[in-house]
Amino acid sequence: MINVAVMGYGTVGSGVVEVLRTNGELINERAQDVINVKYVLDLRDFPGDPVEEILTHDFETIVNDAEVDIVVETMGGIEPAYTFVKRCLEAGKNVATSNKALVAKHGAELLEIARDRSINFMFEASVGGGGIPIIRALNSSLTADRIDEVTGILNGTTNYMLTKMFFESADYDEVLKEAQEKGYAERNPEADVEGHDACRKIAILTSLIAGQHVDFETIHTEGITKITTEDMKYAKTMDMAIKLLASSKREGGESFSAIVAPMLLSKNHPLCNVNDVFNAIFVRGNMLGDAMFYGSGAGKLPTASAVVADVVDAAKHLHRTVVTRWESNTLELVPNADAKRRFFVRIHGEESVLKSRVDEVFGQVEFVKADDVEGEFAVITGEMTEAEYAQKQKRCRKL
Amino acid sequence: MINVAVMGYGTVGSGVVEVLRTNGELINERAQDVINVKYVLDLRDFPGDPVEEILTHDFETIVNDAEVDIVVETMGGIEPAYTFVKRCLEAGKNVATSNKALVAKHGAELLEIARDRSINFMFEASVGGGGIPIIRALNSSLTADRIDEVTGILNGTTNYMLTKMFFESADYDEVLKEAQEKGYAERNPEADVEGHDACRKIAILTSLIAGQHVDFETIHTEGITKITTEDMKYAKTMDMAIKLLASSKREGGESFSAIVAPMLLSKNHPLCNVNDVFNAIFVRGNMLGDAMFYGSGAGKLPTASAVVADVVDAAKHLHRTVVTRWESNTLELVPNADAKRRFFVRIHGEESVLKSRVDEVFGQVEFVKADDVEGEFAVITGEMTEAEYAQKQKRCRKL
Repeated sequence: MINVAVMGYGTVGSGVVEVLRTNGELINERAQDVINVKYVLDLRDFPGDPVEEILTHDFETIVNDAEVDIVVETMGGIEPAYTFVKRCLEAGKNVATSNKALVAKHGAELLEIARDRSINFMFEASVGGGGIPIIRALNSSLTADRIDEVTGILNGTTNYMLTKMFFESADYDEVLKEAQEKGYAERNPEADVEGHDACRKIAILTSLIAGQHVDFETIHTEGITKITTEDMKYAKTMDMAIKLLASSKREGGESFSAIVAPMLLSKNHPLCNVNDVFNAIFVRGNMLGDAMFYGSGAGKLPTASAVVADVVDAAKHLHRTVVTRWESNTLELVPNADAKRRFFVRIHGEESVLKSRVDEVFGQVEFVKADDVEGEFAVITGEMTEAEYAQKQKRCRKL
Repeated sequence: MINVAVMGYGTVGSGVVEVLRTNGELINERAQDVINVKYVLDLRDFPGDPVEEILTHDFETIVNDAEVDIVVETMGGIEPAYTFVKRCLEAGKNVATSNKALVAKHGAELLEIARDRSINFMFEASVGGGGIPIIRALNSSLTADRIDEVTGILNGTTNYMLTKMFFESADYDEVLKEAQEKGYAERNPEADVEGHDACRKIAILTSLIAGQHVDFETIHTEGITKITTEDMKYAKTMDMAIKLLASSKREGGESFSAIVAPMLLSKNHPLCNVNDVFNAIFVRGNMLGDAMFYGSGAGKLPTASAVVADVVDAAKHLHRTVVTRWESNTLELVPNADAKRRFFVRIHGEESVLKSRVDEVFGQVEFVKADDVEGEFAVITGEMTEAEYAQKQKRCRKL
C-alpha cells in the first residue's frame, strides 16, 4: 500500500480525492499497488464530507509520518507551499504539485533535493492544466530530439475571451464581464489577462527544454488588454487569428528567447484553430518535426487527473528519480530587444498618401486594409529585431 | 554502456542510426548511459556507409551476444520479424519496434514474454509514426483516467488525398496519382486507401485502452476509394470535412466498438483541421475530458525519433517492465451491426417530391442540398444502429 497525503482541499485537492475514488481500481492496476489517501490537510473543517475522518490541520502529522510515501500539494501560492514541499522532500517523500507559481520560482531547487534523495518532485498539472501531458512528454517521450521550439496557448481564460472577440465581434470589456460571470475569469483578472499565468508556464517549459533555470521575471510579457475589435477585423481580413502565445525558441546552440504576447497566427498553423477554454502546446523537435498537444487547460477534474497521473508515476518510481533536465544555474535569455519577429502595425491616415513614407521607414511590408475599419490601414513588416522595430516605430509616429 | 542492435537498415532503421548519431549526447544524458549501436543486421551490404563496420548478415550474432541489451526491429512484415523479436525477448533482450503488423498480430504474446523476464517490448513508432507519442501517453501519462474513446486520423497518405480532394476539388484518381508521384502513396496503395494500415493501428490502440487483445480482422474497415468530389461538395456545404477515421469507443463497462471508415466531422471537432500528411489522435477520458495529440504521421526521422525514444525508455528500465495493459485474452468487439451512428445518405431525385417518403423511411433527418450537385439531395439521419440503417437503406433504394 502506498500512502498519500493531500495538502489543500480546495478545487484541485478535492478533485484529486474524487479522481482516486472514481477510478481507484484502474489507478491501482496502473500503479501496481494500492494508492491510499491517508491524510487531507486543510485549515478548514468539512463536516459531513467523507474526508472528515482523515482531515488534519497540522502539517507536522504528515511530514513526521514515515508511512506517507507521496505528498500532493494543491494549496497554491508560494508560502507555506514552498516550506511544506521542501520539508516533505527532505523527509524523503515524493511530491506532486499543481502549483505553477511554486514550480516556476523554486522548481530547480526542489528537483535537486528530490534527485539527491532518489525520489521525485513532479508537476504535470502546473503547466498543461490536465488535458495536456506535456511535462511527461518532454521528460519521457520526446527524448530522442533536441527541442527547438515550444509555443503554447497556455491560458484558457484569455483564449476564451479572444475566441469570443473574434467570432462574435464582442469588445474586450464585454467579454471579460461575461467570462467573469461564467466563472472562467476571476474577479481580479490580472494574472490571466496580463499574461502572468502564461509567463510562469512558459518559464517552466523553457527551463525543461533548455535544461537550465529560466527566471520568469526576465520573460517579456504582454497581455490581451489592448486588443480591440478593430484588431480582430484585421485578423479576419487576413484569414488569421489573434492568440495569446507563450513561446520559447532556441536561437542557435544553447541560447533561447522567450516571450508572452498576443500574436497573429495564419490558418494553417495548428494552434490557430484552438478555441474557447482549450489550451494547446506546439513543439518542434529537430527529428520529429512539428507536434502539438491539445486539451482542457483547466478545470477541477482535468487538473486533478494530471496530479493523480503524477502520483501513479511517483508510485512506480518511489525510490528512483525520473529524469528531468532542469539544473539550478540560471539561463540568460536572449534580450527581447534582440529577438527577431515580424510586426503588425496599424497606421492612421490614407494608404495612398502615406505608402511611400511607410515603405521608407519599414522597408518591404505587406499592406492590409480591413473591410470595416475607416481612416487607417495596417502593415505587416518583414523580420527585424524588437530594437529595430522600436526605432522604426518612433520614426513612423512622426509621419 | 548500453549496446543496441538495429535489425533492418531500410528507411526507418537507417533513420534510427542517424538520430542516435545526430543527437547522441542529448540522448545519452536522458538515458543516463551511453547508447552504443553495436550491430546493424541486414541482408544487403552498404559499401562506404559508416555502418559497414558493424554490419552483420547473421541474426545469431545478435541473439547470442550477451552484451546486446536492446534490439531495434525495423524490418517490417510478420516474418522473420516475429521469430527474431520473440527469440530476442526470450534471450532477455529489450525490443523496440516500428512494425504495426507485428504488434497488431502478436503484441499481447510478445508483451507477456517481456513481462515474464522483467524486460520491455516497446512499439511507440508503430501507431503515431513519430510525432505522436500516444503509446507512452496511454501507458504512462493518462493513468488517472478511464479512457472512453480513441479516434484518430492514423494514415498520412489518405489524409493527404482527402485534403487535396477537399481544398482543390480534385478527384480521387487524380489525387492518388499525384500522391504516388510525390512518394506519399505506394505503387500498390491498397494498404493505405482501403484502410488496412489504419485498422492495424486502431487495433493496437483499442487493445491498450481495453487492456485485452483486439483482433484487427474483426474491425469493420472501409477505405476512401468510394469518396467522390460530390461528397466533398456536400461536406463544404455543411461546413464539415471528410476524414478517414479509425475510432474505438467504450460502449458501457468493458465493451468496445471499433471502426475504420470515412466520416463527416464538424468544424469544431479538433480532428477536423488536421490536414495534409499530418496525423492526430483524439482521446476522451472520464476525468481529463477531451485531449488531442497531433504530429507527423510518418517519415524517416519522425518515425526513427519514436523508436529511439523507446530505446531511451528501455535503457532507463533495462530490467524492469514498464506497465502496459494488454492481456492475451481476446476481446469480442460489439458487432458493427449493433454500433449506433448517424448516417449521411445521398438520394437521387427531387427533395420536394421525395421528402415525405424519406421522412417515412428514416424518421427525423436533416436535408442537405449542395450548391453544385444537380439531380440529387442528401440527408443526415438521427442516431441508429448499422443494422437499422441497412434495413432503411434497402427501403430507401426502392423509392
